[in-house]
This record gives sequence, structure tokens and C-alpha cells, in this order.
Amino acid sequence: MDISTILQQVHTGELTVSDAKAMLSDRGFNDFGFVNIDTSREERTGIPEIIYGGGKTVDQVREIVKRLADNRRDILVTRCTSEMYTAVKEVVPDAIYHPLARTIHYRFNPKEETRSYICVVTAGTSDIPIAEEAVVTATFLGNKVVSVYDVGVAGIHRLFDKIELIRNARVIIVVAGMEGALASVVGGLAAKPVIAVPTSIGYGANFGGLSALLSMLNSCASGVSVVNIDNGFGAACQASLINKL
Amino acid sequence: MDISTILQQVHTGELTVSDAKAMLSDRGFNDFGFVNIDTSREERTGIPEIIYGGGKTVDQVREIVKRLADNRRDILVTRCTSEMYTAVKEVVPDAIYHPLARTIHYRFNPKEETRSYICVVTAGTSDIPIAEEAVVTATFLGNKVVSVYDVGVAGIHRLFDKIELIRNARVIIVVAGMEGALASVVGGLAAKPVIAVPTSIGYGANFGGLSALLSMLNSCASGVSVVNIDNGFGAACQASLINKL
Amino acid sequence: MDISTILQQVHTGELTVSDAKAMLSDRGFNDFGFVNIDTSREERTGIPEIIYGGGKTVDQVREIVKRLADNRRDILVTRCTSEMYTAVKEVVPDAIYHPLARTIHYRFNPKEETRSYICVVTAGTSDIPIAEEAVVTATFLGNKVVSVYDVGVAGIHRLFDKIELIRNARVIIVVAGMEGALASVVGGLAAKPVIAVPTSIGYGANFGGLSALLSMLNSCASGVSVVNIDNGFGAACQASLINKL
Amino acid sequence: MDISTILQQVHTGELTVSDAKAMLSDRGFNDFGFVNIDTSREERTGIPEIIYGGGKTVDQVREIVKRLADNRRDILVTRCTSEMYTAVKEVVPDAIYHPLARTIHYRFNPKEETRSYICVVTAGTSDIPIAEEAVVTATFLGNKVVSVYDVGVAGIHRLFDKIELIRNARVIIVVAGMEGALASVVGGLAAKPVIAVPTSIGYGANFGGLSALLSMLNSCASGVSVVNIDNGFGAACQASLINKL
Amino acid sequence: MDISTILQQVHTGELTVSDAKAMLSDRGFNDFGFVNIDTSREERTGIPEIIYGGGKTVDQVREIVKRLADNRRDILVTRCTSEMYTAVKEVVPDAIYHPLARTIHYRFNPKEETRSYICVVTAGTSDIPIAEEAVVTATFLGNKVVSVYDVGVAGIHRLFDKIELIRNARVIIVVAGMEGALASVVGGLAAKPVIAVPTSIGYGANFGGLSALLSMLNSCASGVSVVNIDNGFGAACQASLINKL
Amino acid sequence: MDISTILQQVHTGELTVSDAKAMLSDRGFNDFGFVNIDTSREERTGIPEIIYGGGKTVDQVREIVKRLADNRRDILVTRCTSEMYTAVKEVVPDAIYHPLARTIHYRFNPKEETRSYICVVTAGTSDIPIAEEAVVTATFLGNKVVSVYDVGVAGIHRLFDKIELIRNARVIIVVAGMEGALASVVGGLAAKPVIAVPTSIGYGANFGGLSALLSMLNSCASGVSVVNIDNGFGAACQASLINKL
Amino acid sequence: MDISTILQQVHTGELTVSDAKAMLSDRGFNDFGFVNIDTSREERTGIPEIIYGGGKTVDQVREIVKRLADNRRDILVTRCTSEMYTAVKEVVPDAIYHPLARTIHYRFNPKEETRSYICVVTAGTSDIPIAEEAVVTATFLGNKVVSVYDVGVAGIHRLFDKIELIRNARVIIVVAGMEGALASVVGGLAAKPVIAVPTSIGYGANFGGLSALLSMLNSCASGVSVVNIDNGFGAACQASLINKL
Amino acid sequence: MDISTILQQVHTGELTVSDAKAMLSDRGFNDFGFVNIDTSREERTGIPEIIYGGGKTVDQVREIVKRLADNRRDILVTRCTSEMYTAVKEVVPDAIYHPLARTIHYRFNPKEETRSYICVVTAGTSDIPIAEEAVVTATFLGNKVVSVYDVGVAGIHRLFDKIELIRNARVIIVVAGMEGALASVVGGLAAKPVIAVPTSIGYGANFGGLSALLSMLNSCASGVSVVNIDNGFGAACQASLINKL
Repeated sequence: MDISTILQQVHTGELTVSDAKAMLSDRGFNDFGFVNIDTSREERTGIPEIIYGGGKTVDQVREIVKRLADNRRDILVTRCTSEMYTAVKEVVPDAIYHPLARTIHYRFNPKEETRSYICVVTAGTSDIPIAEEAVVTATFLGNKVVSVYDVGVAGIHRLFDKIELIRNARVIIVVAGMEGALASVVGGLAAKPVIAVPTSIGYGANFGGLSALLSMLNSCASGVSVVNIDNGFGAACQASLINKL
Repeated sequence: MDISTILQQVHTGELTVSDAKAMLSDRGFNDFGFVNIDTSREERTGIPEIIYGGGKTVDQVREIVKRLADNRRDILVTRCTSEMYTAVKEVVPDAIYHPLARTIHYRFNPKEETRSYICVVTAGTSDIPIAEEAVVTATFLGNKVVSVYDVGVAGIHRLFDKIELIRNARVIIVVAGMEGALASVVGGLAAKPVIAVPTSIGYGANFGGLSALLSMLNSCASGVSVVNIDNGFGAACQASLINKL
Repeated sequence: MDISTILQQVHTGELTVSDAKAMLSDRGFNDFGFVNIDTSREERTGIPEIIYGGGKTVDQVREIVKRLADNRRDILVTRCTSEMYTAVKEVVPDAIYHPLARTIHYRFNPKEETRSYICVVTAGTSDIPIAEEAVVTATFLGNKVVSVYDVGVAGIHRLFDKIELIRNARVIIVVAGMEGALASVVGGLAAKPVIAVPTSIGYGANFGGLSALLSMLNSCASGVSVVNIDNGFGAACQASLINKL
Repeated sequence: MDISTILQQVHTGELTVSDAKAMLSDRGFNDFGFVNIDTSREERTGIPEIIYGGGKTVDQVREIVKRLADNRRDILVTRCTSEMYTAVKEVVPDAIYHPLARTIHYRFNPKEETRSYICVVTAGTSDIPIAEEAVVTATFLGNKVVSVYDVGVAGIHRLFDKIELIRNARVIIVVAGMEGALASVVGGLAAKPVIAVPTSIGYGANFGGLSALLSMLNSCASGVSVVNIDNGFGAACQASLINKL
Repeated sequence: MDISTILQQVHTGELTVSDAKAMLSDRGFNDFGFVNIDTSREERTGIPEIIYGGGKTVDQVREIVKRLADNRRDILVTRCTSEMYTAVKEVVPDAIYHPLARTIHYRFNPKEETRSYICVVTAGTSDIPIAEEAVVTATFLGNKVVSVYDVGVAGIHRLFDKIELIRNARVIIVVAGMEGALASVVGGLAAKPVIAVPTSIGYGANFGGLSALLSMLNSCASGVSVVNIDNGFGAACQASLINKL
Repeated sequence: MDISTILQQVHTGELTVSDAKAMLSDRGFNDFGFVNIDTSREERTGIPEIIYGGGKTVDQVREIVKRLADNRRDILVTRCTSEMYTAVKEVVPDAIYHPLARTIHYRFNPKEETRSYICVVTAGTSDIPIAEEAVVTATFLGNKVVSVYDVGVAGIHRLFDKIELIRNARVIIVVAGMEGALASVVGGLAAKPVIAVPTSIGYGANFGGLSALLSMLNSCASGVSVVNIDNGFGAACQASLINKL
Repeated sequence: MDISTILQQVHTGELTVSDAKAMLSDRGFNDFGFVNIDTSREERTGIPEIIYGGGKTVDQVREIVKRLADNRRDILVTRCTSEMYTAVKEVVPDAIYHPLARTIHYRFNPKEETRSYICVVTAGTSDIPIAEEAVVTATFLGNKVVSVYDVGVAGIHRLFDKIELIRNARVIIVVAGMEGALASVVGGLAAKPVIAVPTSIGYGANFGGLSALLSMLNSCASGVSVVNIDNGFGAACQASLINKL
Repeated sequence: MDISTILQQVHTGELTVSDAKAMLSDRGFNDFGFVNIDTSREERTGIPEIIYGGGKTVDQVREIVKRLADNRRDILVTRCTSEMYTAVKEVVPDAIYHPLARTIHYRFNPKEETRSYICVVTAGTSDIPIAEEAVVTATFLGNKVVSVYDVGVAGIHRLFDKIELIRNARVIIVVAGMEGALASVVGGLAAKPVIAVPTSIGYGANFGGLSALLSMLNSCASGVSVVNIDNGFGAACQASLINKL
């Protein structure tokens, strides 16, 4: 209901003043002091509130999960540890843990999978954990996902073998460390949006993923955008928004 | 035609050996020595070959434009100078120059505008040239574009006034310098993909756009991806791919 | 008027629906397309909207000044050029230009000067332009200002000679380039908040002010906070907020 | 007593030469070899000497605390470990330990709390330890403190719900990692000095807090100054100086 | 066989369509899902596929080694751990482990050693592990290798004593940390290509090998090129390509 | 003649003491105060002393060229200006100027061209000036050179069209800016040493060539080494040493 | 006179109160508002106040020189322009200008030259301007100076020819850009303190002198310390202090 | 003996050819394969070969110490561990271990202590380990050393109390982390060379000592030079060279 309608109904008495005030100031969150759960996030942004496990204690994760579960909200914890999984199972016994992706999830409200798919591509085997974070997240958000792993430019013919599968996706996530060249090569071969995820895989002048990050930002292919280093989660969120347009 | 079909037709005599060879090795480019025009780029990537004026001489730009014009290919030059415009007009008299966006363009093959629109939002007045590069590019690629300027977080109520216009876009480009906070705020308010363009506007510890770039890469909002500093062109290309899905 | 009161008055008929809606959605800005003037900024933040001249064209500056002047709003342009001054005088003939501070200002509504003062201290002669930007800004905002220049630690007895004047300020701005040590020394000698402004003065491994910036952020004195490199304006804004508490 | 008075009293015989010399050379510190306690720091700077636990051994911390306790000076240790707490309790049995804030404190001389309050705001749950360091420090220094946690810009309506509480503070500390946008948003909404604390929370191109630091230094809001990454202590010191003006 | 010949033979019936297709699309790799072994790499690039152990699990390494061994392909694992060695021995019992070089290797197909040699030179004792990675790799690739260790510029007469041995190599690898000056000195004394390997040995402003890397990139000697920090493997690969020309 | 022979001949009287001393202390340079020409450099390192024009005055360049010409030494000046060319022509009237490559050269002693060739490849048109510096330098040093321009990965089919020409070179120089991905792709397709030259072409987070530099240092292809940003000269020197092995 | 003596003389009446106060508070500087000349600097630090021309206006330089000249203080201006020289001659007609070193100086009080000498060594011709700044400064301060130019490690035999001259100095200044290796080589050959001056000579990954700076800080030779990039002046000051011990 | 004399004696028969050759090629080192001990370093540079323990194995350290001890050469190991001490005692039972300084040393040839002293000053307690490395090294090299600890600029009166002790040194080492301001302050108060040692003490934007390093390099005091971060050893070496001039 927009402001005019609310006010009109106050004027006519259809709404009481206190109900109108509640509507105008509907908070859209539950404040538990140490955490302030954003209950309107999915409606507002297309992505529900998801728990970033890094930097949180095991107790904090269990408490937040418990509150979400009490409201039957779907649960996804990223960057989690096996200790967190043990704690989460106390409150959501059927929660699923992916050690490679470092995620815990559970869906109270299963979604129908999209028809179009997101293709997640990696340059190397070492990039797979970040790719799996993207796969788990995108699947959790209701997307069909196809993965193509270890097709980096050191042996570019491996990529060409899979190129039709990649081109037929609705949106492509390219996960690569080292020099990150794969994002440009894929961007130059496919007419779909490419979301590039630099990884911290590499050593020396890789500087924790900086080399791949700069590479991808400077891509000579024009349909490529970039998310943070090792941020498979963020890439999946944007890919999901695009896939569902 | 795929390989099997080509070979089958060679076998049956429907195709001559030399035609088959041409098909298999169709080059998809015109090599002029100093430049190698990628004639299949639009079919392959959804974006035609566009001329980046930075680092090219006026003569190079005129020659490339002439060759594209001879083939009636649409023309867009970015990062151009007024001297380039004078030279381009010699070969394409009706070419259009946007001094603020620093672009020259001409369409031999006008496209129908999309129904859905791309919304280009800036934090400040100084970010407008980069935003205009995005607007010109997206329009050139056949997209409907709406712009909302100077709604940065120092006066966030200006943003809220335009929020419905922004939310109704199919894809949102946020252009911001300084601390680049606008991308996160928009990402937290809209259920559409946000492509963030950091600009080099600012001074001191802005470090040529690094502060906004890092800000946007670290956005706490989950549907945000980033392109290079001041890269309005790249943002428009990806937005166009998304808008046309 | 808060939401409850507005709604109560709608209910009782003291306010019409359309007036109430205007109040609830009072925009607090004037949108001119290329600029969106934040008319409620002073009420909201204690600092009126001030024009940052860097990155704007001469025409843009004149137009913005004209619109502020039409509403008799006080005018301050920072990082301006002499060309901007010529343009501004066309619309505000009595505007005042400080070439060293690179500011233009005019007050339609003179303010009473505060009793307590802000002390602006520089390490060297070369830091004076940034210090003057702070002095002009703080004075424009209605503060009494005292300046103490060229008292850097290479000859620390010069500082001790002025230390009482510095200690008696309500808030202290320290402007220093090179190694920026003066901020720590003053912070260790005065029981007042110190706002440190690193300057880009220096060469070599100064890296455009980075050395002074890092120095000041790592100050061993505990009452020091920092603003951006060369940001005399920002230091003055915060000092003014503190001075008027 | 100033120099003239001292000399006058020497001349008249009211002071002996040796007493005058002691007065003129009053050292204001106790030198124990490995540590040189600054006994005049509170009188001089408004903040007493506080023990930074990082980089000190457990023995050094116990010894310093013992010497301060012998003189009944209030004790605050920051960045401490639980081993340090065990050691400190041997000499100050009633000392209080905050594991989250990593502080130990004890007040021999309780101070009256200020009426006006410092508001400590965090963007996320993971920023709370740094915020708590600020809360403990500010409280130790005699300030009333109010905290508002987990109101970052990914769900900005959570901030608006608390905005009056924030605006009514005398000084505001904003603690945020990732892109640090909250400092600008609060700075654009409140007419009070904002001290921004970047945190090292985040990953990838966060670079240990650099992204939030640069964001905050480049804030488009004009009343914001910044302290070192994760420096809740320093923010509290400056906030205390401001709150007590 | 080139495309024309293949097509001609299809036309004449010498090749069936399906054989021709296989030839045209010969994939040159074995895809095992998590790893995609590039079986044509040696033919294509002169260097076989080698397993980078960093970032892989022990299980992944064993599986990849097993698949290579099943095809009697030579095995080299770099950046491996002793746990990986235990696992590899299960599938290749005679594999050899160099703990200093952190390599495992086994050759099913011994190669004849080259006559000309690669000379591997280190500045200090601490650079030896990286040098040994180069020695093992170059030997594995069939090169004769000579090593000269601990002849850095702090005692440059040690270098002069070995200079003829160095000059007589066909290609020289210089491994140095700290300031990396040895690469320039050797480059100024020998008429052979020098491949410089910066190491992360050093402390403080060494920044993980950055100082040596920048030094070597800026070498005033003109025949020096550089590989990544600590990348003895990469230097050996390029040296091998050069040595075998 | 080595030390033993010299001493033996002194002993037998075949050499006088003063001749022997001259031989032992043969300086191998001509010291003119402001410049110290290294006359033995070609014999020692395979590359003669070449004049780096950057940072030298026009007078210095003319004087150095004159001294080299007086001794009929071949002349190559890099990073020169047209003013330098005017000055050089005064002393070497037939010197040749390449404005794109920014070189001046003249050969008193023409060399026979090598049979094998160096292939210089660029990603884009804007990289050509650096490539031309490499071409001129390599040709000056007596190498056959073939160039392949504008075959970057945004349209990778352009590269495949030229791949045999590239593979047949003895050594390959890849010149690329932006994300520098071409070096890895070529390294993955050719069994020859690849020397990668990052260029400063690009903008924003290119950071003056840093993105391409880091990309190339982190190349996943194993036969790639790197020279300084924009250093076509250095790449040509090393390629020449390799080509002549 | 120390404090006790002053007080004793006040007590006995040998000193008046006002004379004693003047003595105790002798300021040691002349404050002219925009500049605060440190008249006691030479007595205090061994180096008189010297004028850094960079960042000062021509008028400021003339005024400061005039005030020093009025007091017959020796004058040295560094980083000056020819315009500054014209202005300085108005007040000190016999002042001497070195365009290469960018200095102006005049000595009212000629000093006797030291017997021992400072040796200033450069790697290349392009480093000479910074070396000359050191030579002029050291000479101005009364030191005998010997210079050895263009003996960098690309042709290290040139250095060995001059090594005795260098070793016989009392202190050595090494000026080098690019990879700065010369400082380590000299440090490894001489038993005298070496002060290294990195220069900004070079290009690409030189990053304005950063490569030489890091090289020198990481020198494997143990008697080397470093001053700021291009800071010939600072090196000369410290060398002078050492030479006069 | 110089070359002429040697040759003359060969000529006259006073020297045999083989003795002359040995003299001319006297190597000045003992090569043990993994380490190449520089036996002429002390004669050549004033500082004997000292063992850097970082990056060496316990076995390597014991072996090197054993070889030095066999030749009765004085022993100093820096950056050592307690395990190294256990190993060293096996070969030199009387070796002395300083855990704070992380050094092991033993002098077979005690030196007479210098009369003049080196003063080692620290800003804080946490800087003491680096200072102690300097103290142990300088004492080992035969210098008298005086230390003054915890006199940083947060309480600058503590410094003034010790200033005469500092001024009377022949050379001053200032050890400071955080903002490193103490070096400039001491440099501005003493007429002696100051060698500044930045430490990695601090947090956040300290970046491992970078802030103190840049501060010290940009010191406004003119007699200050700098060594690497945490390099107490290097500072002591140079101070020793200066102290013994």
C-alpha cells in the first residue's frame, strides 16, 4: 500500500492511526542485539539474508540459524567450519554440509529450478572450492547449474571442446586464479554476460589474488564484470538475479 | 553448419572441397596489418567491434572507421578527441560527437529500442562524463536508457525519491567515485543486477579510483559486480547483454 | 513533526491528505538534472551543501552558484580556478576569491563568530595552502580561527613557543606533509581533539601524501583522527561540528 | 606556576634554588628501564597512559600493571590475552576481563559518567569486537555509551529505525569493514562529528581493512574523520575528548 | 594431416566421415571431471603436463598421478608435501622425493641428457630450495644442469671464481632474494640468456619477494628476463626450451 | 690470454712487465666523465652498449653518439625524441629515425641476418609502438624478425589464423597491455620460449601496466618469462641472445 | 649556562629576573608568519636551515633568502627553478646557480674544506643530477668531495677501475636508479659507511624509484643505509655529519 | 702486493709463476657447496661474515658455526631459534644466547671496546627486541653501547630528560614502529648521524612496518638515514663503521 492510500484510509477511518504508523514504519527486520536479521531482504533485493560464517563464533552461527529456522526461513551459511556444522545440526538436524564449498544449507521452502542454466567454469582444479561455493549458492537460490572444470588457457583446446555448453548458458561464471586469462577468452567467445571470480590460487606475485583481479578488471572482452577475490557466493547471487530476469 | 554436416556434404558432393575448407577456416576478421578487424564479434559475443580511441593516432582512427563504413558496419569510437571527430567526419559526414562522453558514433543499421530499460545512476555531478559514456554505448547497442544523476549518499533522501524508477529497470549501472558507497546502498534496495563503475573522481587517498574500486568489490550487498575504473563503456556492454536476455 | 502527529492531524482533519503526503515525502532537494542540490543538508548534518570545484566545468559551477544565490543560500566553492571566479562574479559580484586556498565564498547570511577557536597548525611553509582551505572553510562556517604556521619537528622549539595558544583551542587541526610527525607531537601535548590533515608535500617515497597519511593513522598519541590527503575542507567541517557542540 | 613566578620566588627567597630546579625540571614520568611510565599524560592530553598489550610479554604487562596499581592509577590493558589476565589478577585481583573486546581494566578512582553519550554503531555482527574495545575504553574514561549493532547498508532500513538514537549522541563512532559505506551514510544523516573505524572484516580485495579505510577517508559526507584499522581504542579516546568539551 | 588433405581423403573415400571428424576434433585431453589432463601439452608446448601440488588435496594428487602412470606418462609433482609422497608411492612405488625442492618425480621414459648445460646460480644459502626446484625440473626435462650456490654480491669475488663455469652454460638461471642484484651482475658478465628468479627470502621491506622482483625487472643488464617469485619450476621450463633449441 | 700464459710469458721475457700489466688491467671502457662507455660489452654480454635516451639531454646524446661514431661503433638510441634525431644527424648524417619506435640507429658494420626468426606478436593496435621498439632492436642486432599484430584474445580466431607463423619462430615476443592474457595463450600453443612484454596500454585499474605485468608473471603456461613494462628493447636483447644460440 | 647556574645567579642578583627568563626561554627562531626560520638549527643539528624550493612560490623564496642574507647566514636553496634564481639575485647578486643540481647557493662565511673526502658514485649518466645535488650540498657544508660517475653493474669492470678511489673516502654516497644494485656491490667492497640514494630513473615497474628504494633497503651488504628517492641533499647532510666526526 | 710488484718479482724470479698466480687469484672464501664462507669480508668491508639464521635449517647453522669455530673466527648468529642454540652449543659450548634479541654469539678474539659510544633509542617497550639485536651486534663488533628505551613522542618530555646522553653519542640508532616520528624529533635535536630502524610494531594501516619506514624516509630532519624494517643488525653494522672512523 502506498502512502496516499494509507493516509486516505486513515482519513476515512478504514485504518487506525496506530496500524497506519506500523505500516509506515514496518521495520522489516528482527533485532536480537548482536544481530539484526533483515527479514525483508529477499523481497527487496531478490536474495534472502545469508549468513557469512567468517568472523562469527560457533555460538553466533547457531543462534542466528535457530532464529531463522524458528521462522522457517531457508538457511545458507558460507565460509563455515565443521564445528559450525555440528552446532547447526543441533537446531536443524537435516542441514547439509559441503566441506569443499565450506557451506551449510537447508531449504524449508524448496523452489522450482529454473529452466535456463548458469554455467560455472574454472581454469584449474585448485579453483574448484570457490566454484563449488558458487554452485551451492546458485542451486540454493533455485537455479539450474552446469559446471565445466579445469579448462584454463594453458590447454585452450579443452575449453573449445566445451564451448557450446558454455555458450548455451544464460549467464556464465568464470572462476580463475593465477593470471585469470580465462575470463577474457570466454568473454570473447560467448554472447552472454560473464561474471568473473578471481581466486587467490597461485603464489609469488599473485599477491593473494590481486593478479587475477586486475586481469579481469582490465579484460579486453567487453561483456565481463568482476566480483571480489574468492567470492563465489557473490557471483552466484548476481548470476541468479540475471538468470531469473 | 557443424563439422559433421560439412563433411557429409563433402562426401555426397553437395560441397566442394574448397568451399568446405573456406567454411571450416572462415576467418571472421579482416587483417589490415596495423589492425585486424573482428568481423564476427557481434555474432560471437553480442557486442560488435568498437574502437577504443585512447592510444590510437587520429590517422589510425580514421582508417579503421573508413573500413568499417565501407562495409556499412555501425561505428562507435570511445575515448576520442575532437581532432578524431574532424577526421571521422571526412569519411562519415553524419557521425555524431558527444564531447562529455568523449564518443563518436553512427548507425548504418538502426536497431529497435528495447522495451525494458537500463538505469544509469551517478553519485555526483562529476561522475556524469563516465555515466554518459555508458548511456551513449547502451543506446548505440539498442537499449532504452534512463538516467538518474547526483543522488549520492551524502544526501540519501535524493536517492529515495527516485528509487522506484531505479527498481523498475531491468539492470542498473551505478557510477560513483570517492568512497563509492552508492553501489552498496542501491544493491541493498533493488532486486536487479547492479553493475558498479568506480570513477577516478576524488583526491588524495582516492588513488585514481582505487578507493571506489575496492569499496565496490567489497560491497556488503550481494547482487553487485564491478567493472574497471571509469569504464562506462564496459558496464554498458554487460548491461546490454543482460537487458536483451 | 513526527509520523504520529502527522497521522493524528490527518485523522482529526487538521491536515489534509495532500499536505500530509507532502510532509511525509518532503524531498529536501532541488533536482536540476545535472545537479541535485541538497537543501536540507545544513539542518541534517550541520554543514550546508558546499560546491567541490574539482572535476566540474566552469559553466556547471556558475549555474550551481546561481541557483544557490537565487535562494540566498551561502556560497563556498573549493578547489576552484580563477576562471571559475570570473564566472561566479557574473552572478555574485561580491564573491571573494582566495587564490592560495583556492576558494570562492560569499555569505548572504552572516553568522556570529564562535567564542572558542579552532587552531590550525602547519609543519612547514609548503603546507599553508591546505591550511588556508581549512581556515576559509571554518571561518565560513562561523568559527573563530587562529593559525600557527611552520612549527614542524625539525625545529621543535618553535612549536613549544606557541604551545599555550594551541592548547587553549577547543579543537586543533594539524596540517603536515613529509613524515607527518607533528600530529603525534601535538597530540601528545594537548588535551583537545586533534584532526590531522596529511598533505602531498614532499617527494620520492612520499607517494603523494601516503607517508604522512600512514604516519597519522598510526599515531602513538591517542586523541588523533585523520582526514583525506590535502583535505583541509573536511578537517574544517569536522572541527566546526566539534567547536559548536 | 609559570617561569616568571618561580624566578620571582627564587629572588625573594620564597623558593630555594633546589626546589625551583625540581619544579622547572619536573619530569612527569617514572623510568623503569624497559618501560617509562608517563605520569603526566592525563593532565597533559586528557587521556591517561594505557597499556597496549600487543607485542608485550605477559611479564611486562604484569610489571607495568603492578607499578600503576602501586600508585593507585586506573588500569586499562588493550589487545590482551587470557594469559595476561591471569597474570594481572595476581596484582589486581578485582581486575575485569572482556574477552570479546580483549581488554582488562580496573578503576581505583571511579569517575562520574557524562550525561551526553557516545553512540557506537556497527555495520555487521563481525565488527562487534572492535566496537566493544571502543565501548570499554570510552566507559573507562567516564563516558556514557550507547551501542547500535548490525545496521549496515545492505539493509539500510535497520539504520533508519535507530537514527534518532544516533542523532542524539554528542559524538558518533561508526565501526565497519568491507566497503565501510556506513560511515558516509551516517555522516550524511547526523549533525554530529563522526569518527570512523575501518575494520579488517572481509576477504579478498579487502586487503586487511584497506578497502574500508580508503572508503572512509574518501567519504563524501563532510563531518567524518578516521582512525587506524581496527582501532576502537583510538576512536574512543578522541570521542571522549570531544564528549567532555 | 592438414584440413585440405583430410577433406580430400573424405572426398575420395580414403577416410570415413566419422574418422575425419575424430581427426578434426581430436581433443588432446582426458577429462576426469575434477581434472582435465592435457595429453597433447608436450607435443604442443615442449613441456608435458606437470602437477602443481599447492592447493590440491592428497587424494587429488594420487588420483592424477595414477591416471598419468596408467598411461606411462612421466610424473613430476611440484610444491608437494611428504603426505603427498606417501600417497604417490601407493601408485608409483619407485617415485623419488626431494624434500628440499618439494618435488616428487618418476620417469617411465628416460630421456637422453643434453650436452649443453643450464647453470643454476644462487645468491645465498637460503635461496637453495627454489634453486633445487629448478634443478629437479630441468633434469626431469632431460637437461644437464650445473649448480653454483652462495655467490651473492656481498662477496662478489666468490662469483668471479666461478664465472667461466657460468659463462659456458647455454642458459643461466639466477636465483636471488633480498635485493636481487646478482641477476644484473651476471647479466653484465655473460653473453647468454639469463632467467632471473626472485625469491621471498628476506624480511621487512622485502614484501614477500617484491623487492627482488622489481630489481630484476629493472635490471640495467639487457639480457635478463624474469619469472614469478619463488618460481624455480617456471624458470627451468623456459631454460629447457632454450637449451634444446 | 689467461693469467698463467701472461705470467709465463713475463717469466720468459716474451711480454714486458708493462705490457703484461696493461693486459691484466685492460679496462674495457672509455671514461668521458659524464659517461663511461663500456667498449667490451658486446664481447662480454652479446649485446653492445646501447644509448637509453630517456633522462639524457640532447647534448649528452649527441656527444655519446659522436664518440661511438668516431670509433665506428654501431649506434642505437632508444626512447629518443625528434630533437635528439636532429642533433644526431649533425654527427651521423645517415642515421635513421623511427618515430613510432622512438629509436635512432646506424650500422657501420652491417651484420648478416639470422636464418631463424623472432616473431613479435601484439594483442592490440595500441601495443604497436612497443613492439616496433623490439623489432628495430632485434633487427639492429642482426636478427630476422616477423611481426603479427592485433591478435588479442577478444577475438582469438585471429590468433589461430597466424599460429603456424608464430610456432615456426625460434623465439616469440608477446606484447600486450590490459590483462595481458595473450602471453599465456601463446605460451600454451607453442613449443618455443615466449618473452612477454607488458605494456602500459589500458586505463583505470591497469595502474600503468601493473595488471599486464602481474598477469604475465602468473602465467599458467610454463615457458613464459617477462621483462619490464613497455620494455620492447629488453625483450629484443634476450630474444637475440636466444636466437643466436 | 645550565638551569642551576641561572637560578644561582638570580638568587645572588647577578642576573635580573627578566634576563633569566629570556635565557630560559631563548627561542632560537625568527617567526615571519609564513615562515619560521630556525636560527639555532646549525648549532643544534650540525646542519643549518636550508631552503627547500619545491612547493614554495618565487616570492617566498626571495623573502626567505633576503632575511637570511640580512643576517649574513649562508644560503642554499634546493629544488629551485631559474625563475627563483632571477629573484634571488635581486637580493644576493653573487648567488651561484647550478641548473643540473637545481640549487642556488652563496656563502657569507666560507668554511675550511675537510681533508677527508666524501665520494659520490653514480650507476648511470641519468643519475648525475641527483648526484650533483649531493655534491653541491656537501661542498656547501665544507666537505671535500670526489665524484665517480657511470660505473653501474652492467659493466662492473668500470667500477673496479675506480675502487681504490672509492675505498679511500671517509664516507660513500651511491646514487642509482633502475635496480639500484650498485649500492650492494660497493657495500660489499668497501669498509666505509655507504649512504644509498635511490633515483626515479627507469621506467615501467620502476614505479618512480620504488624498485631502487626496495633494493637498497634489502641490501645483502651490511653497511648500507638509505635516504628518500632522489634525495641527494639528505644523503649529503648525513655524509657531512659523518665526515666531520 | 700490487700487480706491478708481483709481475716484477716474477720477472726477477723472486716469485715463481705458480705463487704469483695464487696471489693474483687469492680467492678469499671457503666453498662448502651449500655455503661459501667469505673469509675476507672483515678486511674488505669492516664487518665479518655473520650468519643470518632466518631461512636456514638447524643443521646448516651448526655446520657453518662449526667451520667458523674450526678457524677460530668470531661467531654471531641473528634471527636464531632456541633449537639453533642447542645445536650451536654442541660445537661451541660457551656460546651465549639472547632470546629477546634472538642472537647467539661467541668471541674467540675479544676486541677492545671503543671509547665513543653508540646510543640506541626506542620509542616504545615493544620496540626493544629489535633494539637489543642492534645492541648485541654493535657490542659484538667492539663498540660501547648505551640504550635509552621508551621515550616516544606521545610523552616527549621523557626524551628531553635523556637528550644530553643521546647528544653525546658519536652515532645514534633510533628504533620506532607505529608512525616512527621519534627519528625526526631526535634528528632535529642532535648534531650526530641518526640511523633510523622502522619496526613492524603496530597494527592496521601499519602494514608490517611500512608506515614507520615511509615516515623515516620522509623525515624533515636532514641527518637521518634508514635501514630495512626490523633490521637492528644492519643499523648496528653501519653505526659501528661510523663509530670507528
